[in-house]
Amino acid sequence: MARDTVDLRSDTVTRPTDAMREAMMRAELGDDVLGDDPTVRALEERVASVLGKDAACFVPSGTMANQACVRAQTEPGDEIVAHEGNHVYVYEGGAWAAVSGCSIALLRGDRGMFSGEDVRRSVRPDDTHFPRTRLVCVENTHNRGGGAVWPLARLRDVTETAHGLGLRTHLDGARLWNAHVASGVALDELARGFDTVSVCFSKGLGAPVGSAAAGDASTIRKVRRLRKMLGGGMRQSGLLAGAALHALDHHVDRLAEDHEHAHLLASALSRLPGFRVDPESVETNIVYATIAEGSVAGGAAGFVRTLSDLGVRILAVDNQIIRVVTSLAVDRTSVARAIEAFEAAASRLCV
Amino acid sequence: MARDTVDLRSDTVTRPTDAMREAMMRAELGDDVLGDDPTVRALEERVASVLGKDAACFVPSGTMANQACVRAQTEPGDEIVAHEGNHVYVYEGGAWAAVSGCSIALLRGDRGMFSGEDVRRSVRPDDTHFPRTRLVCVENTHNRGGGAVWPLARLRDVTETAHGLGLRTHLDGARLWNAHVASGVALDELARGFDTVSVCFSKGLGAPVGSAAAGDASTIRKVRRLRKMLGGGMRQSGLLAGAALHALDHHVDRLAEDHEHAHLLASALSRLPGFRVDPESVETNIVYATIAEGSVAGGAAGFVRTLSDLGVRILAVDNQIIRVVTSLAVDRTSVARAIEAFEAAASRLCV
Amino acid sequence: MARDTVDLRSDTVTRPTDAMREAMMRAELGDDVLGDDPTVRALEERVASVLGKDAACFVPSGTMANQACVRAQTEPGDEIVAHEGNHVYVYEGGAWAAVSGCSIALLRGDRGMFSGEDVRRSVRPDDTHFPRTRLVCVENTHNRGGGAVWPLARLRDVTETAHGLGLRTHLDGARLWNAHVASGVALDELARGFDTVSVCFSKGLGAPVGSAAAGDASTIRKVRRLRKMLGGGMRQSGLLAGAALHALDHHVDRLAEDHEHAHLLASALSRLPGFRVDPESVETNIVYATIAEGSVAGGAAGFVRTLSDLGVRILAVDNQIIRVVTSLAVDRTSVARAIEAFEAAASRLCV
Amino acid sequence: MARDTVDLRSDTVTRPTDAMREAMMRAELGDDVLGDDPTVRALEERVASVLGKDAACFVPSGTMANQACVRAQTEPGDEIVAHEGNHVYVYEGGAWAAVSGCSIALLRGDRGMFSGEDVRRSVRPDDTHFPRTRLVCVENTHNRGGGAVWPLARLRDVTETAHGLGLRTHLDGARLWNAHVASGVALDELARGFDTVSVCFSKGLGAPVGSAAAGDASTIRKVRRLRKMLGGGMRQSGLLAGAALHALDHHVDRLAEDHEHAHLLASALSRLPGFRVDPESVETNIVYATIAEGSVAGGAAGFVRTLSDLGVRILAVDNQIIRVVTSLAVDRTSVARAIEAFEAAASRLCV
Repeated sequence: MARDTVDLRSDTVTRPTDAMREAMMRAELGDDVLGDDPTVRALEERVASVLGKDAACFVPSGTMANQACVRAQTEPGDEIVAHEGNHVYVYEGGAWAAVSGCSIALLRGDRGMFSGEDVRRSVRPDDTHFPRTRLVCVENTHNRGGGAVWPLARLRDVTETAHGLGLRTHLDGARLWNAHVASGVALDELARGFDTVSVCFSKGLGAPVGSAAAGDASTIRKVRRLRKMLGGGMRQSGLLAGAALHALDHHVDRLAEDHEHAHLLASALSRLPGFRVDPESVETNIVYATIAEGSVAGGAAGFVRTLSDLGVRILAVDNQIIRVVTSLAVDRTSVARAIEAFEAAASRLCV
Repeated sequence: MARDTVDLRSDTVTRPTDAMREAMMRAELGDDVLGDDPTVRALEERVASVLGKDAACFVPSGTMANQACVRAQTEPGDEIVAHEGNHVYVYEGGAWAAVSGCSIALLRGDRGMFSGEDVRRSVRPDDTHFPRTRLVCVENTHNRGGGAVWPLARLRDVTETAHGLGLRTHLDGARLWNAHVASGVALDELARGFDTVSVCFSKGLGAPVGSAAAGDASTIRKVRRLRKMLGGGMRQSGLLAGAALHALDHHVDRLAEDHEHAHLLASALSRLPGFRVDPESVETNIVYATIAEGSVAGGAAGFVRTLSDLGVRILAVDNQIIRVVTSLAVDRTSVARAIEAFEAAASRLCV
Repeated sequence: MARDTVDLRSDTVTRPTDAMREAMMRAELGDDVLGDDPTVRALEERVASVLGKDAACFVPSGTMANQACVRAQTEPGDEIVAHEGNHVYVYEGGAWAAVSGCSIALLRGDRGMFSGEDVRRSVRPDDTHFPRTRLVCVENTHNRGGGAVWPLARLRDVTETAHGLGLRTHLDGARLWNAHVASGVALDELARGFDTVSVCFSKGLGAPVGSAAAGDASTIRKVRRLRKMLGGGMRQSGLLAGAALHALDHHVDRLAEDHEHAHLLASALSRLPGFRVDPESVETNIVYATIAEGSVAGGAAGFVRTLSDLGVRILAVDNQIIRVVTSLAVDRTSVARAIEAFEAAASRLCV
Repeated sequence: MARDTVDLRSDTVTRPTDAMREAMMRAELGDDVLGDDPTVRALEERVASVLGKDAACFVPSGTMANQACVRAQTEPGDEIVAHEGNHVYVYEGGAWAAVSGCSIALLRGDRGMFSGEDVRRSVRPDDTHFPRTRLVCVENTHNRGGGAVWPLARLRDVTETAHGLGLRTHLDGARLWNAHVASGVALDELARGFDTVSVCFSKGLGAPVGSAAAGDASTIRKVRRLRKMLGGGMRQSGLLAGAALHALDHHVDRLAEDHEHAHLLASALSRLPGFRVDPESVETNIVYATIAEGSVAGGAAGFVRTLSDLGVRILAVDNQIIRVVTSLAVDRTSVARAIEAFEAAASRLCV
């Protein structure tokens, strides 16, 4: 990729900053499989603390964080409840079924959200014909919901209803940092009511590798066992944990910039003929825009290709929807360049 | 249960007729786990033949027939495609996930049906984020769809699209006999285009126990292995196969009576104040009726209880929907008694 | 198979007696999936009572009884402990792994037995590298151990050690009836100390189909759920339960005859040149004999074939070992015929 | 841990050298989940090439490399064949069962090895009672076998027999580098005949994190899918791949030193009263020594504790066996210090 490409495909494309690299090199290391890595231990304690949980476990990916939490809280033959657009259902290789053997009840709802009442209605009767409803999964911010931030009251409605029904609750907080910065609500408040929470260091926070699962001590012990079994036990992983600690210190507040950039990009897209997106709905760093059928030559794919020729990379979700994501890898200048490219591409392609 | 109760809860509640009992007693037996039971072999050949398939395997239940077909044609991490109301998804303990480790894409559509285009849109891209779409499941007649019969053209659209996409196809034909009698289409025509088919002897056919899975020889060999592993290998099961053979000889054509009875019952329900059901939509032996909110004291549950006191048993699906099913266990006199009871209950409860 | 063949392959080859058939026909039936079959309920209560357990669940096969007990008491990633010759490990399609996701620690020991100390040594350390040891499986009588009966003190040593280590215990009692008759120890004494017990009606007891799992109420509720999910929910299964109840009334004490017949057959085999078997070690109805290499033309397979020509069927386990099993299907006359055939075959084949 | 502790617990305890850290910092990065990381791609090509395979896939751990190879080549209900001391069976959380649903046939044999004939005898008959034998796993060098190197002829015997029987073959080559250096046989010769091979960069090679699975293109595509599903997809993992590439360039030949050190340590142990180890059997970097019962106060654990007080860390396998492993973290001076500590501890503890 050319040096000056603007990469808006995902917030996972960032490269470590120089300061982060230095932090990695300074990290004290040990064999984490033997429990000897002090930097991993420090990260795990830090994550548990900011999320208000007993314990945390560092893992190689958000998928492992989510799926280990699912497996630690269910048995095969249980059913999980999730929004039909949740990452845990759509993008994780079907691990909830393939690794945990769970059935799934899919909820619908605007912007990736649902209500306590939706949860209540999804619970299966206690009868041998049915799986046993066991775990409710929330994603905040919601990726496919356009980076939407769950209102606190809505989170409480879901978690309290779930607990009242005897269900466990999991929060996919890969982008919980964004929800925190956008809403101003403390991380531990956003995490309250969830038995387990996953967070990711390699998305908005810009660390190269790693996620964590947090929760009560006994569940996290199970997660740690599962991490080994699934192949996520790493040796001198303090190197990666050092980057994550650096990111927690330096890259959380700056997410406000990513959100501002996303808003600018959404506004620019909203002005293109045939593009539909409400900039006011862009709460964090993810923008989805819909291209009216027949309005752009080649549809979403054509628009993405033309942008790529202009040095700007975005994703086509399907032939009418494009996705644009801001991150540490995209500064104000890049945003300006992207907006220019959007306009140039539209002027070439708009019918 | 009193001798003269009319049981309309399900077509699984029938008891073997005297002629069927005699057939069972006459059946030649052997140890089917060792491959020695001639009656089971005869039944398997008969089923394969009427469905136009290479081979069939006798199993203890419709759930095992369906789920062994799912597992034989998938690997954990594959995805199956099914209507959200399919028995295989809703009523089989989540075995598609708990036993086969499959993800699921849920389709919607009137009366349990969907189109080839729905299948095409459900296929996941070839990308490591996604499970691999592998098997499409159709149910005919569709239980939760009100015993609906799939039109032949619609079956062909789904199976041809699926095969064109490289997918396998499974037909849950627990009530395929009803579809055959209601539509006049031959069983092998209804089964054509499906790589595997399950049929049930203990529903409309009135045998006490047993189902079968049919398909190509290599898949049925896998089903036979899975049957043993899942615990469905039975010894002198010719006894049960004898009942199924008797049912194939004597209880298929008579399903027309069950359909006529269901139509009579639906008509009766449609005349009760606050009950909604279109008798013309009742194609086979299952009737769902909706009770308008507030129109019956105690809702569906109240109606069911009152009927039970009057010696007629039906099921409440939820607090507004009731289900009535006809079978071998319900003759014309019973239908008349049920209709009287419906009217008596309604006159007591209708607000 | 000719009418007058003597079938010594297994005790699963019996056909129901006339009295058993009558009992089946008299059995009161209902839909057991809906909980309505009174004969199944009666059988389940009877089995729970004779084994001294809270509850029991009727299932189609011994494999389902064993494997549902394994799955009900473990999670994937747990480890079970079993003798390397146990049926649950060797002959059940690997369901302990394929259905329950369990690892296994294999114990050795004479005649299928092991000690509490063996169990203690098999427990894995509490460390993320290892599965969690969870369930000990005992088989009594032990099929591959030659129908061996566990001494009561040895059972107690194993179950008490296991419980002391926090492990659960399962007894594969497919032939527990034989252990009871051979040892004179009450069934509930043999079952004491086991959290779950499976028993089989289609082996020595001569019923056509069916087994049961017994244990505490909460575990058996799980078994019942698993039965549905695995496809073992049957409808008018009271027919089969009626045969099992008849067998419990009439076919337990008569196992003494099978044991006497097995002893006679073992004595006859021990007198053939090149055959090694100690008749005194034959405690119940199973006889294994070893053929010294080179002493019989065609080895075990040759002997089995020649016997078959003479109207007597037995099994070759490998090319040096044969298995002979007595059952309800083999009376004193058949035993005499088998002994004649043994001698005739040996005189033809012994080198 | 004090700066000057000598750590002989495992070859996984090494910390990256300065040169390796520089290599990591120089590595060109991208998002490997999107296929954009050039350093990961370079490592994967390099590994495939040195092992003589089509393709390779970088994963976070040796456990994931092994278990993804197992799952890619089996279905639940298949059986794998392995030595009872293999890492894949003993130390990977039972993932072969918990993740792949496989049964296992355990072979015995000196120093972790077995023969083609052992494989042949382990194959289950083609019968529904049995799992289907599918994959043979070899470990070279063999950890629990004392770092033993498989003779080439023995490898060929096993792989050719396995292929002749229609089985797949997997090589756990976590320490294949050691086998290569100790035997002088090329890596691709050691890998030949294996359908899949795992290698590890974080053991003898001294990289902080990472392993790879290599094999034919279609199997490695499956491994790549499984990596995502199991949660091993990492983002800017070129950082870790850079360390691995550095290790391949600079840390393979130097393993000869580790082997020499292990030999020196074994010789020293062999001279202690009550310790049994044959230095000539130490082929690579792992030493197991047995302590005669009653000869050392506190047994193996006592010896380990006393050494720890003297600044030398080793592992007790059980109360009679100790394990000593050399690596990049242990230079000649450390070896000398360890030998002194062995002698001092023995003089304090030997009875």
